[in-house]
Amino acid sequence: MSESFQAVPVGHVESSLLDPEHAPKQGLEGAPSAWLVFEERVAEGARDLEIGAELFVLTWLHRARRDVLVVHPRGDPRNPETGVFSTRSPDRPNPIGLHRVSVAAIDGSRVLVRGMEAVDGTPVLDVKPVLPGGW
Amino acid sequence: MSESFQAVPVGHVESSLLDPEHAPKQGLEGAPSAWLVFEERVAEGARDLEIGAELFVLTWLHRARRDVLVVHPRGDPRNPETGVFSTRSPDRPNPIGLHRVSVAAIDGSRVLVRGMEAVDGTPVLDVKPVLPGGW
Repeated sequence: MSESFQAVPVGHVESSLLDPEHAPKQGLEGAPSAWLVFEERVAEGARDLEIGAELFVLTWLHRARRDVLVVHPRGDPRNPETGVFSTRSPDRPNPIGLHRVSVAAIDGSRVLVRGMEAVDGTPVLDVKPVLPGGW
Repeated sequence: MSESFQAVPVGHVESSLLDPEHAPKQGLEGAPSAWLVFEERVAEGARDLEIGAELFVLTWLHRARRDVLVVHPRGDPRNPETGVFSTRSPDRPNPIGLHRVSVAAIDGSRVLVRGMEAVDGTPVLDVKPVLPGGW
């Protein structure tokens, strides 16, 4: 049995997307803007975010399945079964979502980001700047 | 108090980098190749990884501090203190590392990747393909 690690949300997503079935598969595919709402206890960590910044947002996809190792990509049964580590399926052993977004507005400890495909209420684990070249 | 989530490693890093003090800050900065060693129980999830694939590897930076909200970027006191969510510091509330690498070789459930700056023994939480354009 492996050791495990306790991930504690630093905030959550406030979005008009309520249903994963209707959410776009990726942020580039017409996802709306959404608010990242930071917890007060970590808000100082977000103090230097600026409008226009490109960010990676890491979320915990709390509605995903963790017991899945192969999937039909994009949930389409015509796509052959593929190991989850070669897909961006939310269903995977650690259902951590990786979202590339840009900052559209800032209101205290709330940050509006463009192109966020996670549903309302999704816990946020981390936010990082995108490095030049998408690294 | 927030709820929390249990992240269970899917594998670990085998690397010649032993000491975080000597590791490059980013994978682009001369990091060596390293093996991702998948746990047998999830190895099926890695079955479709291919040589040349571009991947994001998510790690748990087990030596990092979690009680830090502002840092001097790159550990250099000449850099002004900055909120951690605007930096790639390993020290942050959830010390999840994001590493962009490419697959150099595959040996069963072991995958050699280029440009991996995490130290030997670092737990791996997830592996995802990089989407076109670095998303």
